[in-house]
Amino acid sequence: MILSIPNYEFKERQQKFVKKMQEKGCEAAVIYAVADIFYLTGFHFHPTERPIALFVDSQAEFHLFVPALEVEHAEEYAVISKVYSYPEYPGIKHPMEYFKEVLIAHGFENKAIGFDAMGYGSSMGYRGPTMDTFLQVKEFVSLKWLIEEMRYVKSANEIELIKESCRWGNLAHRLLQKYSKAGASEIEITTRASSEATAAMVETLGGGYKPHGSPAHAIFRGQIGPESAFPHAVTQNIILKKGDTLVTGAGADIFGYKSELERTMFVEEASADQEKYFNYMYEAQDVAFNHIKPGVECREVEEAVQQYFIEQGITQLTRHHTGHNIGILGHEGPFLDLGDTTVIEEGMVFTVEPGIYVPGLGGFRHSDTVVVTKDGIEMLTYYPRDLASLIC
Amino acid sequence: MILSIPNYEFKERQQKFVKKMQEKGCEAAVIYAVADIFYLTGFHFHPTERPIALFVDSQAEFHLFVPALEVEHAEEYAVISKVYSYPEYPGIKHPMEYFKEVLIAHGFENKAIGFDAMGYGSSMGYRGPTMDTFLQVKEFVSLKWLIEEMRYVKSANEIELIKESCRWGNLAHRLLQKYSKAGASEIEITTRASSEATAAMVETLGGGYKPHGSPAHAIFRGQIGPESAFPHAVTQNIILKKGDTLVTGAGADIFGYKSELERTMFVEEASADQEKYFNYMYEAQDVAFNHIKPGVECREVEEAVQQYFIEQGITQLTRHHTGHNIGILGHEGPFLDLGDTTVIEEGMVFTVEPGIYVPGLGGFRHSDTVVVTKDGIEMLTYYPRDLASLIC
Repeated sequence: MILSIPNYEFKERQQKFVKKMQEKGCEAAVIYAVADIFYLTGFHFHPTERPIALFVDSQAEFHLFVPALEVEHAEEYAVISKVYSYPEYPGIKHPMEYFKEVLIAHGFENKAIGFDAMGYGSSMGYRGPTMDTFLQVKEFVSLKWLIEEMRYVKSANEIELIKESCRWGNLAHRLLQKYSKAGASEIEITTRASSEATAAMVETLGGGYKPHGSPAHAIFRGQIGPESAFPHAVTQNIILKKGDTLVTGAGADIFGYKSELERTMFVEEASADQEKYFNYMYEAQDVAFNHIKPGVECREVEEAVQQYFIEQGITQLTRHHTGHNIGILGHEGPFLDLGDTTVIEEGMVFTVEPGIYVPGLGGFRHSDTVVVTKDGIEMLTYYPRDLASLIC
Repeated sequence: MILSIPNYEFKERQQKFVKKMQEKGCEAAVIYAVADIFYLTGFHFHPTERPIALFVDSQAEFHLFVPALEVEHAEEYAVISKVYSYPEYPGIKHPMEYFKEVLIAHGFENKAIGFDAMGYGSSMGYRGPTMDTFLQVKEFVSLKWLIEEMRYVKSANEIELIKESCRWGNLAHRLLQKYSKAGASEIEITTRASSEATAAMVETLGGGYKPHGSPAHAIFRGQIGPESAFPHAVTQNIILKKGDTLVTGAGADIFGYKSELERTMFVEEASADQEKYFNYMYEAQDVAFNHIKPGVECREVEEAVQQYFIEQGITQLTRHHTGHNIGILGHEGPFLDLGDTTVIEEGMVFTVEPGIYVPGLGGFRHSDTVVVTKDGIEMLTYYPRDLASLIC
């Protein structure tokens, strides 16, 4: 059982990044994106007002620049050469003044410097200068999408972690369905299902399990009864009623890797109308499953699904594209979207979740997580999809 | 009992924003920051690859620009004039092309336009042009910190929501302490305490409770035993041992408003060393409590705490500043930091959490949430602070 990304894989990612960075003419680079720092170094931290950056010097050494309170934490857990720090933000001397000194000491002046952002970005009260105001370089070269694109195709270890995530999402969803009864409230059900699944997960996986996120959880996100017609509602703590359409969600973070399992369920019974829309959704998802394979452009999958909706005359009930990549973040590019021409490759992991939304009645959406194989897909989520299994 | 911000308060915030925006010479404005959109309109959404923006036209009307899947959700819940939308991201026509048309239709050309960012920002696969590439304006005027600064001083309703948050954080922490025993694992304890506190919370508050975040929860965030010496560790699923130093955290979101309660606890017993550092931390927190009052600069509170640490000869064991504002976000400015000269005002809500970190032994930090009153502070968190109460 694999419960983490081994250190050698972080080093392989770093080597690959250096190669790509050099191909773009960069001699060194600075990266601020939290998910990308985790991807390259395994360092998981809670971003706050205090800036954190990863930098790669011209000897291809990876270093972290962190606040004093993260030094020992980074030294213990990050796959990195050296950790540099500043006392605090805002501090008497601004963190970026320290960073400037560190970068200059590493020869960043008068070089071609790759970057993903010109400075640290945070909504949590951070203010600071951009690098172009304090660093004299030969050229700044944007590497903004480079690491995101490295993350498109998952490694064997990443796929194993996502499979493990599916297992515990599946259990949480089982319990969610079990506790979804008329008269029960949203948070009551989701809390019980999530905590019981988490307890089982922790007993089973033991101390080797590092979530780097949330353990097993199952949710409604407010998609209960008529409110399920809002495709991206938020938790409302609604009481379930007989006949309600429910749209669920379940997953678990395994060393930061995610999966997505969503089901359309009905409390006690489904009306003829609910059954009709459920079946459209079910068939649309099948259309998507059948079109995902290496060599196909992402847009082609969406075109096939949209064609199905046109044939059924229900395009006006759709609200979003068919799916997205998933891994360290809950949504990642590329997207199964009319405008996305990315060519699908073996090892990409997609959610497949075409949806239909009927105002006043409810929303109809399953989401499954699939990995692209040599000639099609392997389903990673395995919860029943048929209507009879989803009456609770 | 107040469980939400009433609509009139959102309208007051909007009027105040318009006044400030106009004082800065802006005739209209575009805002992308998720927390600020929530603050001004009550619209809570899950940001993804799909851009969302709030814009204020020259008639001081507030509008939202959202993806199709958020239209009905925004119309139902946002305090707003009108909702505009685009089909999907990336789409055949990019969302920003739609946004350009909407802004031009609202007379945004050749005007002085306030903004907080030049475009939507998301790590979830979003790519798009900045507004300055598609909108011909008289002038772009940065309003980047304006709404954040409006959020510094809390209203009576906001303080009530934060007090409600403290109540349920307190219960979650009580249960956390009850279940913290040698041999139990981190996630097992935190899941049980959080889910039981949440169940009680939902039973008590009923359907009027909208979390807009997480219900009651209590955590260790990996700060167990020697790992508690990492001030900002992450969940590690560690097994508790007799004599461990624990640093906890507890809270609950009430309509998006947060509080912070952290305690240093010891499993079964505290050694003379642990007691010594606990007492330093306790006294440092008292120093901070005694220095927070209207008219004082934030830095003065930190200077007093640092002076205490110097007198005790333990400055080398500190890693971070004394506290931060808290409200819609877990960390907000201003900060109780040597470099923050913001003048403290009545109604600001701060965490007070000076910490001491002893490698190999553990971390020592309480965090309490306080509101600034006419002549000092009112403690909003009320969990016991003394060592005898914190042996578990």
